[in-house]
Amino acid sequence: MGRWEPDAQGRLREAALELYAEQGFDATTVADIAARAGVTERTFFRHFADKREVLFDGSHELEHIVADVVASAPTSATPMVAVSAAMVQAGIALQQRREFATKRAAVIAANGSLMERELLKLAALAAATAQALRGRGVPEPVAVLAGEVGVIAFKVAFARWIADRGELPAYVTQALDQLRELSA
Amino acid sequence: MGRWEPDAQGRLREAALELYAEQGFDATTVADIAARAGVTERTFFRHFADKREVLFDGSHELEHIVADVVASAPTSATPMVAVSAAMVQAGIALQQRREFATKRAAVIAANGSLMERELLKLAALAAATAQALRGRGVPEPVAVLAGEVGVIAFKVAFARWIADRGELPAYVTQALDQLRELSA
Repeated sequence: MGRWEPDAQGRLREAALELYAEQGFDATTVADIAARAGVTERTFFRHFADKREVLFDGSHELEHIVADVVASAPTSATPMVAVSAAMVQAGIALQQRREFATKRAAVIAANGSLMERELLKLAALAAATAQALRGRGVPEPVAVLAGEVGVIAFKVAFARWIADRGELPAYVTQALDQLRELSA
Repeated sequence: MGRWEPDAQGRLREAALELYAEQGFDATTVADIAARAGVTERTFFRHFADKREVLFDGSHELEHIVADVVASAPTSATPMVAVSAAMVQAGIALQQRREFATKRAAVIAANGSLMERELLKLAALAAATAQALRGRGVPEPVAVLAGEVGVIAFKVAFARWIADRGELPAYVTQALDQLRELSA
């Protein structure tokens, strides 16, 4: 392998997911992943901090999307309107990566420690949403509650999207509507 | 130590919390805990599966409380009314253990892996709530959403209770009211 490896990151991600699905997350080493992708271990560590991060490196991106949309919502938007727009936008971003997301969800569901990490990342998404709301002057506890409710809608929509065919942004909108009806 | 140890479980729990607070969860062994409580390691394992379970053995109890209250709510109760009653009842149960809960929360907040486990236990509480709602004939996705919303109210109220003086059941009721206003 030369110094220039076209899409090494993408190949590493694919290789890792394949191996996690085939032999389990715990039994897979970084050496296995690098070998399958045809790169060195050093290349792996140029792209990912560890073998878990292959599965979670997209979560910061979602946090940024959500924070940006909340921050740029019209001044007149209520907290839930801003959060709803943000979660739909996160759904649009993820919709383009359906195949990766589906494989990833199966790997996570098979491993208790990965499920715990996934919940921590969702908690971080709720916290980033609440922080963006505070930046709009939304007080406590509304900021925290709205962030949590937005993430619930996203989580429920995501599970449905993994199980069914369909469009994630539409599922997010439906979940938000159903949450509203629940409290009516 | 003889075979009969009055409240060995309670002493072990206190000893564990003290040690986790003093020297950190990771640095504390079961041998340390047993020695501090004045019992054998064997006695520890008669009461707890491992040193993590000292912190989480109450979570099944909360799940049972919530499931029972949801199941026994009047037929006319909406899903959110049944869930709200259940979360308030869980708050009443926990209110009696304020000192333990406060120390426990500080230990968990200091350890990423314990925070992940706490989130998994909260997810299990939401799942138990949803399951109890299904038993009342509540369809998807309402059952899942109502379970998640109930746990959010509980989580937000719990954080406030740990930070402030006050009554957990009242904080749960307030959080549920605020969630309703959010969607209005």
